[in-house]
Amino acid sequence: MGIDRKELRWNGWGWRDFENPLEGREEAWVWMADQLGMPTLMATPGKRFEDLSPPPNQLTPSALHDIAAIVGETQLRTDNFERAFHARGQSYKDLLALRDGDLGSAPDAIVYPRSADEILRLMELAAQAGFSIVPFGGGSSVVGGVTPDKTDQRPVITLDLTEMDDLLQVDETSGTATAQAGIYGPQLEHALQVQGVTLGHYPQSFEFSTLGGWIAARGAGQQSNRYGKAEEWLVSARVATPSGLWSTESFPASAAGPNLNQMVSGSEGAFGVVVDATFRVRKTPDEQEFRGYMFPTFEAGAEAIRQINQADVPSAMLRLSDSDETFFFQSFGKIGEKESFSDALADRYLKFRGMGERPCLMIAGVEGAAPDVARSKHDIGNTVGAHGGISLGSGPGASWYGSRFASPYLRDPMMDHGLGVDTLETAASWSHIRALYVAVKEALSGAMRETAPRPGAHGLVMGHISHSYEDGASLYFTYVFPRALDDELGQWRKIKSAASDAINENGGTISHHHGVGADHAKWADREKGEIGMAILRAVKKEIDPGNLLNPGKWLG
Amino acid sequence: MGIDRKELRWNGWGWRDFENPLEGREEAWVWMADQLGMPTLMATPGKRFEDLSPPPNQLTPSALHDIAAIVGETQLRTDNFERAFHARGQSYKDLLALRDGDLGSAPDAIVYPRSADEILRLMELAAQAGFSIVPFGGGSSVVGGVTPDKTDQRPVITLDLTEMDDLLQVDETSGTATAQAGIYGPQLEHALQVQGVTLGHYPQSFEFSTLGGWIAARGAGQQSNRYGKAEEWLVSARVATPSGLWSTESFPASAAGPNLNQMVSGSEGAFGVVVDATFRVRKTPDEQEFRGYMFPTFEAGAEAIRQINQADVPSAMLRLSDSDETFFFQSFGKIGEKESFSDALADRYLKFRGMGERPCLMIAGVEGAAPDVARSKHDIGNTVGAHGGISLGSGPGASWYGSRFASPYLRDPMMDHGLGVDTLETAASWSHIRALYVAVKEALSGAMRETAPRPGAHGLVMGHISHSYEDGASLYFTYVFPRALDDELGQWRKIKSAASDAINENGGTISHHHGVGADHAKWADREKGEIGMAILRAVKKEIDPGNLLNPGKWLG
Repeated sequence: MGIDRKELRWNGWGWRDFENPLEGREEAWVWMADQLGMPTLMATPGKRFEDLSPPPNQLTPSALHDIAAIVGETQLRTDNFERAFHARGQSYKDLLALRDGDLGSAPDAIVYPRSADEILRLMELAAQAGFSIVPFGGGSSVVGGVTPDKTDQRPVITLDLTEMDDLLQVDETSGTATAQAGIYGPQLEHALQVQGVTLGHYPQSFEFSTLGGWIAARGAGQQSNRYGKAEEWLVSARVATPSGLWSTESFPASAAGPNLNQMVSGSEGAFGVVVDATFRVRKTPDEQEFRGYMFPTFEAGAEAIRQINQADVPSAMLRLSDSDETFFFQSFGKIGEKESFSDALADRYLKFRGMGERPCLMIAGVEGAAPDVARSKHDIGNTVGAHGGISLGSGPGASWYGSRFASPYLRDPMMDHGLGVDTLETAASWSHIRALYVAVKEALSGAMRETAPRPGAHGLVMGHISHSYEDGASLYFTYVFPRALDDELGQWRKIKSAASDAINENGGTISHHHGVGADHAKWADREKGEIGMAILRAVKKEIDPGNLLNPGKWLG
Repeated sequence: MGIDRKELRWNGWGWRDFENPLEGREEAWVWMADQLGMPTLMATPGKRFEDLSPPPNQLTPSALHDIAAIVGETQLRTDNFERAFHARGQSYKDLLALRDGDLGSAPDAIVYPRSADEILRLMELAAQAGFSIVPFGGGSSVVGGVTPDKTDQRPVITLDLTEMDDLLQVDETSGTATAQAGIYGPQLEHALQVQGVTLGHYPQSFEFSTLGGWIAARGAGQQSNRYGKAEEWLVSARVATPSGLWSTESFPASAAGPNLNQMVSGSEGAFGVVVDATFRVRKTPDEQEFRGYMFPTFEAGAEAIRQINQADVPSAMLRLSDSDETFFFQSFGKIGEKESFSDALADRYLKFRGMGERPCLMIAGVEGAAPDVARSKHDIGNTVGAHGGISLGSGPGASWYGSRFASPYLRDPMMDHGLGVDTLETAASWSHIRALYVAVKEALSGAMRETAPRPGAHGLVMGHISHSYEDGASLYFTYVFPRALDDELGQWRKIKSAASDAINENGGTISHHHGVGADHAKWADREKGEIGMAILRAVKKEIDPGNLLNPGKWLG
């Protein structure tokens, strides 16, 4: 049944007891300071939970009594840990607030419903008693999607779905399955795989995000080239709304009007709460391999990825780091280690093969039946070669695979050392990719330099292509910067705005898979245009006229 | 520039001068009567155009003057032929009315706009002057989608888009192209193919339908297994609406809220007029082959198609006729011909190979690079064999390919001989396909028997799987019946209702690619449910508050 919230960090990523991967690695911080033009890094520990408390609970005893009457006493929580845990998501902005001891956004109560009927009755009560509802799955939003909006005057309950976590059905004939929305990634995959099938949806947040969250935010797993994004694998959903239970159409394809499953995907809790969903599954693959390739330039690698997609070569993942990301992860992981003979040899070999000083690493994943995997590997290898790339074998792939959910754990220790770490992502057609990549990188670098805490200090930007299509690709950026301690939120806002403007102006979408939440609202408005926004607002007003659901967000 | 309407039939299918494929084939009609339990067929010629006239034009001279001021005199037509041509689509119900001389639904005027700006200005005028607008591409709707609704009291203009027919751009890097919405299929494919790319969208109506119509009605081409349905290949659109010009988002994928292109696909002229659209294209395939296979039963063939899809074997088309359809087309084509020695031999061979008396024909199409085509053929052949099927070589495929747009021409002569001919289609998950197939077939047969003009007379139902997916397939039914001349519309309604109820009750969608129009409204309502319909109506009201666009249809 879900994950006991006490085992998780209320102000950081993941398991409370997960070992700090940088523990005792002082030389890494020295190297890091050097990379950022800082003489040394600052110590910026987060406040202790014991020293804080959330604001007073605004729900009346009568409202709390009525809530408990619907879900039962055990499913209603108002203790400080639950309120802190549900106060925010996992964005850099969220961590700044939480580590600073700001629990102002904590919900007044947290409810763990166990059925659609309970959720519908809570919505009725919310309308009568005048509180709002924030749907919450794993809480891994990095765009402010689960943060209660305290400018809204009503008390707020957060609806934590993680006790609605059953796999309900596997339809092997149709290749579909149905599960409750609150099921976590590992639990879902386990339940599916013992029946020989997989959804194959492995976002970086896999361990701490849920089926319903993936759908509501149009998530993408790392192997989405094979398995598709949430809006692609979603077949149908049941959604609890203030207007009643909404069951969407459930067909492999239909011409009976607009497909309203596409209105559920991306609704981010503003139209309703996903209760359960049917989705496409595949046989668990007979074989799976992740392999490393090195390209002399990012452009050469991007061109290879474009051609692989456009030539119908099946792949599960084609992940191309730019030279900065390739360099950073190669260097950061080895700080303080003596260069081994084999590393030195590998380095000389790469230079000999024309890779230059700062090559770009691609990890390519292929899955499926053995002959299909062999064929894809062969075709990918040929295309890589035609673009000046070389194979590094399966070592780098296995290494990436082994740590594919681990990198968020690097953020907490970095934030203890005066560093800001944030990510953003976008997608565009192939014609726009190059200009978009350059513009976002320059915007980030420029804004980080401008907002740096001292002259000469600056940030680092690492980029990669994370998902690819016949007509375009997504770009993912990770950026690290020395924090301006006197105005951290202002610094974040300037950097984020500069990058988001660059995305808007260069043919990119403000998000490929993180969603809109609160932080992307302005740019999402521009993307959809006036008529698009009028349509979405009309839907919101029709389905949730009292604005009970997730107020203060893009569509709330 | 488009097709001169005078070259087309106003009360039947296609080119006016296309030769009657059954001319002088009296023995075919004798055979047909026998198949339907009729002693003989009735002569039911349609009325001559010269003997009819549309109702009086309800547009005031002042309104006509204002329209002409926007688009120019040459682009405004009010003559009888244009009004008759635009009075209805191509459904059986439409043909009944037109052949009976009923031009009651004729629009008051037909306008051929040449720009988005003209369309927007016409909408402003429509709001002021009080007329409604029916968008019209090729006019091949078989669900009443382009028929003016005369219960609406306002005069109506039909907006014929076919003079907006330019290919605007091919983006080879991104694999996309942009064209104006009124471009016909052959013109679009020609313009694309001279640049080495193809959209690959070949519906049966290909010669007489347009890009904008395909998008608005969520159309599917015969090779949609490879190229996708309209809602899949659509990247973005510009849509003229009463609220202004709506440009939808244009990304390979996005998490910035619901994808509103999916609101354009299936809007059927109720939300706006598609002006131009960007869509995915592919390199024209190096090879293309259509091949025939024979299965002992429909179930065996369906199971093979399911496995081919679920095993990731690429195909362009897998079209499986049931035994009735296989028998009908084999027999009807050869009526009066002496059985040749090779035919007899082929027949004996099929029986020897276990095909039984009434086998089922599949045509499988594969396209792409030569090695991919060879591999698909090999994999398809293996799966066919594993299900008791055998290859018939490329002969039946070439034969199907050569006549793939021709069968609608059979309907006009059939309607001259007292026969009704109608088609309908649906889609469902693989788990529902068998029960859905049986239920629809029984509903059609039962209703045709009940409404037959004399005891013992009955209809014929032919079915096929036309499009297939990992999780399901579409079913297409063609049915022929002796008309009950005293109540033809009542007969049509009873048959259509019985089949549509069966679809609703057996997990099928009311349409896989024909759309909703007016005829499917009741069943589409049920499919979407109350909340789904409330959402669609809210969108309609927001974007077209005066209900100027396509009133009287599902969303109008």
